[in-house]
Amino acid sequence: MKYPYSDAALPVGKRVADLLGRMTTDEKIGQLIQLFGWKAYVHKDGAITIADDYKEKLARGGIGSFYGFLRADPWTGVTLESGLAPKESAEAVNLVQRYAIENSRLGIPVLFGEECAHGHMSIGATVFPVPIAAASTWNPELFEQACSAVAEETRSRGGAATYSPILDIVRDPRWGRTEETFGEDPVLCAEMGTAAVRGLQSGLPDRGIAATVKHFAAYGASMGGRNGAPANIGPIELREKDLYPFEKAIEAGALSVMTAYNEIDGVPCTSNRELLTDILRDTWGFDGFVITDCGALGMLAGGHRVAEDGQNAAALALQAGVDMEMSGEVFEAHLREAVDNGIVPMGTLDQAAARVLSVKFRLGLFENPYVDPKRAESVSERGEHRYLARKMAQEGIVLLQNRNGRLPLSKAIRRIAVIGPNAANRYNQLGDYTSPQPADAIVTVLGGIRSKLGPDAEVRYAEGCRVCSVDRSQIGEAAALARWADAAVVVVGGSSARQFGDNMIDQTTGANLVQDTSVDMDTGEGVDRSDLALSGVQLELVQAVFDTGVPVVVVFVNGRPVSEPWIAEHIDAVLEAWYPGQEGGHAVADILFGDCNPSGKLPVSIPKNVGQLPVYYNVKKTNGKRYLETDTEPLYRFGHGLSYTTFAYSGLTVAPERITAEDEASVTVRVTNTGSVAGQEVVQLYIRDEICSVTRPVMELKRFAKIALAPGEEKTVTFTLGRDQLQFVDQSLGRIVEPGRFMIYVGGDPTALLTAELIVERSMKNN
Amino acid sequence: MKYPYSDAALPVGKRVADLLGRMTTDEKIGQLIQLFGWKAYVHKDGAITIADDYKEKLARGGIGSFYGFLRADPWTGVTLESGLAPKESAEAVNLVQRYAIENSRLGIPVLFGEECAHGHMSIGATVFPVPIAAASTWNPELFEQACSAVAEETRSRGGAATYSPILDIVRDPRWGRTEETFGEDPVLCAEMGTAAVRGLQSGLPDRGIAATVKHFAAYGASMGGRNGAPANIGPIELREKDLYPFEKAIEAGALSVMTAYNEIDGVPCTSNRELLTDILRDTWGFDGFVITDCGALGMLAGGHRVAEDGQNAAALALQAGVDMEMSGEVFEAHLREAVDNGIVPMGTLDQAAARVLSVKFRLGLFENPYVDPKRAESVSERGEHRYLARKMAQEGIVLLQNRNGRLPLSKAIRRIAVIGPNAANRYNQLGDYTSPQPADAIVTVLGGIRSKLGPDAEVRYAEGCRVCSVDRSQIGEAAALARWADAAVVVVGGSSARQFGDNMIDQTTGANLVQDTSVDMDTGEGVDRSDLALSGVQLELVQAVFDTGVPVVVVFVNGRPVSEPWIAEHIDAVLEAWYPGQEGGHAVADILFGDCNPSGKLPVSIPKNVGQLPVYYNVKKTNGKRYLETDTEPLYRFGHGLSYTTFAYSGLTVAPERITAEDEASVTVRVTNTGSVAGQEVVQLYIRDEICSVTRPVMELKRFAKIALAPGEEKTVTFTLGRDQLQFVDQSLGRIVEPGRFMIYVGGDPTALLTAELIVERSMKNN
Repeated sequence: MKYPYSDAALPVGKRVADLLGRMTTDEKIGQLIQLFGWKAYVHKDGAITIADDYKEKLARGGIGSFYGFLRADPWTGVTLESGLAPKESAEAVNLVQRYAIENSRLGIPVLFGEECAHGHMSIGATVFPVPIAAASTWNPELFEQACSAVAEETRSRGGAATYSPILDIVRDPRWGRTEETFGEDPVLCAEMGTAAVRGLQSGLPDRGIAATVKHFAAYGASMGGRNGAPANIGPIELREKDLYPFEKAIEAGALSVMTAYNEIDGVPCTSNRELLTDILRDTWGFDGFVITDCGALGMLAGGHRVAEDGQNAAALALQAGVDMEMSGEVFEAHLREAVDNGIVPMGTLDQAAARVLSVKFRLGLFENPYVDPKRAESVSERGEHRYLARKMAQEGIVLLQNRNGRLPLSKAIRRIAVIGPNAANRYNQLGDYTSPQPADAIVTVLGGIRSKLGPDAEVRYAEGCRVCSVDRSQIGEAAALARWADAAVVVVGGSSARQFGDNMIDQTTGANLVQDTSVDMDTGEGVDRSDLALSGVQLELVQAVFDTGVPVVVVFVNGRPVSEPWIAEHIDAVLEAWYPGQEGGHAVADILFGDCNPSGKLPVSIPKNVGQLPVYYNVKKTNGKRYLETDTEPLYRFGHGLSYTTFAYSGLTVAPERITAEDEASVTVRVTNTGSVAGQEVVQLYIRDEICSVTRPVMELKRFAKIALAPGEEKTVTFTLGRDQLQFVDQSLGRIVEPGRFMIYVGGDPTALLTAELIVERSMKNN
Repeated sequence: MKYPYSDAALPVGKRVADLLGRMTTDEKIGQLIQLFGWKAYVHKDGAITIADDYKEKLARGGIGSFYGFLRADPWTGVTLESGLAPKESAEAVNLVQRYAIENSRLGIPVLFGEECAHGHMSIGATVFPVPIAAASTWNPELFEQACSAVAEETRSRGGAATYSPILDIVRDPRWGRTEETFGEDPVLCAEMGTAAVRGLQSGLPDRGIAATVKHFAAYGASMGGRNGAPANIGPIELREKDLYPFEKAIEAGALSVMTAYNEIDGVPCTSNRELLTDILRDTWGFDGFVITDCGALGMLAGGHRVAEDGQNAAALALQAGVDMEMSGEVFEAHLREAVDNGIVPMGTLDQAAARVLSVKFRLGLFENPYVDPKRAESVSERGEHRYLARKMAQEGIVLLQNRNGRLPLSKAIRRIAVIGPNAANRYNQLGDYTSPQPADAIVTVLGGIRSKLGPDAEVRYAEGCRVCSVDRSQIGEAAALARWADAAVVVVGGSSARQFGDNMIDQTTGANLVQDTSVDMDTGEGVDRSDLALSGVQLELVQAVFDTGVPVVVVFVNGRPVSEPWIAEHIDAVLEAWYPGQEGGHAVADILFGDCNPSGKLPVSIPKNVGQLPVYYNVKKTNGKRYLETDTEPLYRFGHGLSYTTFAYSGLTVAPERITAEDEASVTVRVTNTGSVAGQEVVQLYIRDEICSVTRPVMELKRFAKIALAPGEEKTVTFTLGRDQLQFVDQSLGRIVEPGRFMIYVGGDPTALLTAELIVERSMKNN
């Protein structure tokens, strides 16, 4: 043990101080620099060597972190052959880490940061359903387990941080990243987000990885759903809606925060001191580090134009509260210059370096920098992770409608037609931020149905059309197949499958890159849409199958709300499966044939059409009731989702019925499974603050619980309501509880809720 | 002369103080109360008598003002017979005014407030083009003359205040009131708005009427273009965009301000003290009175729910800075109670009453309360007002495209087909907030063309379809007519013609009323759309006419941008006439046949489709370049508008090229008419602040000038740029000029501008 900073018995603060005291300016700057991981090594014929220029950088302590080391270079198009398999990826991390530790003056380990939005973005990792599907489970406990599994897979290969969860609230589903969010509601988002933080970080320092909550802030509020466009919102809305999930995630201990590309009311998030320091650190007490989004520093000069050049961009960001630049070149090229010129004080640099180092100590990287390649291989093959992925997918599927008892289908069916562009397309089922996976690892809807049915059932498949193409030539064949069948399952939706490398945001201007139209892809980062209908001729395919008269089930496999009123009107049974991950096909089949009773609920409103936007449930009463052509109600409401059984609610009570702002009330309700099959129900509690000094939404989700009930079984669910649920952001931008009447709404169907009241009285202590 | 307050020689302040000192609490409250004017009288068989309950109210000083006395009761549907003709309306005002003065204790005259958005909303008044057409003239001087004419007509009947101009910036044309605005740009809006204030108030106290600038504030920023919905914007955007025109109008002396229905970031405008007092009075020095919008006080309790009941709503509003309630019941029912209960201090009541009285003194109402009915009649018949209306319409028409020299048409044409729902429909040409007018007072496009052409030309007409109906039965006939013709003029667009009374905002919730679908109307207050394409089957009509192969000119007569890319692609010549007013048909014909060279420029961007929204020119650089299906560029850009001649720009110079924030620079450019006909050109100057501490738009209109040039003529145009043009709202919410480089763009075509630079240097005095 050379120095005190190497002594694991000392408190982290002491270790950081000791280490910082020994570091040169360049070494401190090095800790703030993250580079693209895939540039650091050469991968050829199964052998991995460190790139020469990276050896030099590692040796002088010039690299604090690597981004996406294990996902490989997205711009060249990652394949199973060009990427890293579990075992070799762990070996590659060890190789680079060992070089950094053994050849640098102070032996500081590198932080390997990875994408893990719904599974580690690497070959052989388990691909879980996308976040919007996770949110549809309304089951944070299950999601926490899944995140813990993801962390285990990631850490086993050497990844120690991840750039998830995304806590952006989406209220404009034109946005291509809608699939990556937990939807439109701050409380549901906060519950899923804190579950992710707990799951990802569980077992630290020996297991688990640092969660990075992003994109701080209001990235989901971008104008027109355009990726990275300005968020023109006010300070109250910002705090009520966009900041709330972040505050909760910081409370839950998230170790890292990523800044958003966008500006809020003229101030870029990446240079926003109020956001990154006053709120995040001084008010919420965040003690991890802040990382920019990829290219966000360049945007300060090139896009937002609040900085003249890289040096000033670096200084602005650092002084606002940024600690590390994500996989960029601005800190590396300009930070030394900025320090030498005095526009970045040494105290600011020290502070940023200390924060990064503190997280590295807390991750145990100094004690355990290396990983076990064999374990990396075995962890990825664990059946329980696939089981979790299937369970997540099952619970995340939303039964949007089921008229005439169309579902579940009988397993005694003889002829079933499985039709549609997303029925058998493996990659269209996985969503964005996914690495290539072996073909046999992905169960498509067609595969799931085939493996579900016995030898007496004949399953035939027709693609019908592509997702985006306007080629109608296969529709006739698909209709013919439908005529042959006893039932047709039509799987349509979207695609976030990147076939030709990444399609990222323009790092200078923040603009979306022009879409390569040869890619049959309509969703994902940088792929915003001006329409919410099904792309291409998919609706025509559904209509052609419907016109045959065969019983039709439509399954949406997609990443953003599908606005297709025709389908809602004509098709009896519709499932929203989102991108359900590698086990999605099994999950869909489980639900289609009744082996699993659907329990998902929408985390986002489905609009009737793009002209209705914005559409979300927790509007103000003055939202407006209609347009000339349509009302302002969604096609399907937030919180909606059907089951194969029915649930009855009764006995809603609030006790006590009058409290002060310091007390809590208990809300109790009885839920009975009144149908004939077992099922899970999401019990939802909404409130309405009747009169308030600032306007409040017509209803706000505050509590929910997912419960399982056997046929005839009754359970009593109790929620507590206290300051956390009753407070709001007032004109002084603080959170307070005002005396007055609160309406309480409880139920599982957002259009049929039981109601009660709670009175908050003026307390002696406050007000 | 009984009391000092009656002494016109005394300063207004002294008169107000004297009068206030003599008033009872109820009399003070009375000054804050405005009632629907049409309820005060009974109009039967040409005779007008005062309603009994109104006699009582007038006698006890309970009515400070009447709303819309001269427009008659909109809910019963005003007709030429049920409304008031010019002479009798003046007599009615005199009758009521005399009763108020002679039967009340203090003889305070009543303020008659009228709608005059584009002409006095009364029978026989001149109907000018709607405000969006006025803005399209880019000719504030002309608009000022028109507003002066409007004021003269209004005051001649006894109206002494109006509820215009509307200064709301519209960036979501789904909004039904788009036609009532000056478009998307704050500087253009401010120029037109201040012209309106000057025109309306010119000649006070003997002539002119009090302008009311509305809706304060951000009513045009309502979510989803839904009337009265929340404006979720931040404080910098609010000041840069929405407040700027109001600030300029207050500088120009506007005597009255109307609060908006909507909230901004949770705070209703009608109870927003920061807006109504801190900004409006303390910062801008406004010394007139603030009136609510109609029903806005009820909304505080029923819609926004920031007040428990009417009493609290009244108190909240009054203490925020409201002085008068527009034609409502809350002050009348609750204000006394609120004063007695002490929740409205007497000082607050005194202050509000004093502000109302001060305006009445400044309007000369104490000296000249009565009007001359004969003059009322003669003023309305003045030919120069009709001439102004025609000139406004001519200059407000925008030539959107003119391929193959399609326009102007030759007057030697033999057969012309005039087709479309808006070709001969008088009321579809007038826009919202219009009273019935004698049929012969309105010149339709068909009428204009007929009166333009000599006896050798045959003009035939086919309606083709209605605006909103999906009845296609007349399209064939219209196409047949087109086949007969040498050219077809197809007049399509929208309708704001209310046939069954008003269609106002719901006064409790602020929600739009459900549209009566029997009304063939797709625009106007409360009629927001979820689509921007032509309503009904109008596009099919245009396509059917186009398919005949006849040369086609499309004329849009409408109130909001029409997004029809098919028309842009296929039709050679397209005119945007907006609702051009009663002389609109002449103006359109003048342009179609080249008697007038078009000079209008768009005051608002025309989007390609609703899914692209928001679309406006002065976006930030990070706005985003495209959606999957389309880019983010408009179909036609703000500032666009063609001419029958061409203009060349040269010699752009900035002198000096370096200034400090205290100095001014002159920007000079030469403009030459390089075509063969005389024409007017709108020279536009935009700037871009290159690097700024908050993000700035890619370009901002700062100056413009409309000039007339004979063929071959050259003029030099000089603009000054100083603090007013170079400043911006910084993070502390003040307006400052930052040193740095400004790009200067000058020209008449927003896609082809000359560029220059201006450097603002750090001054010795500041920074």
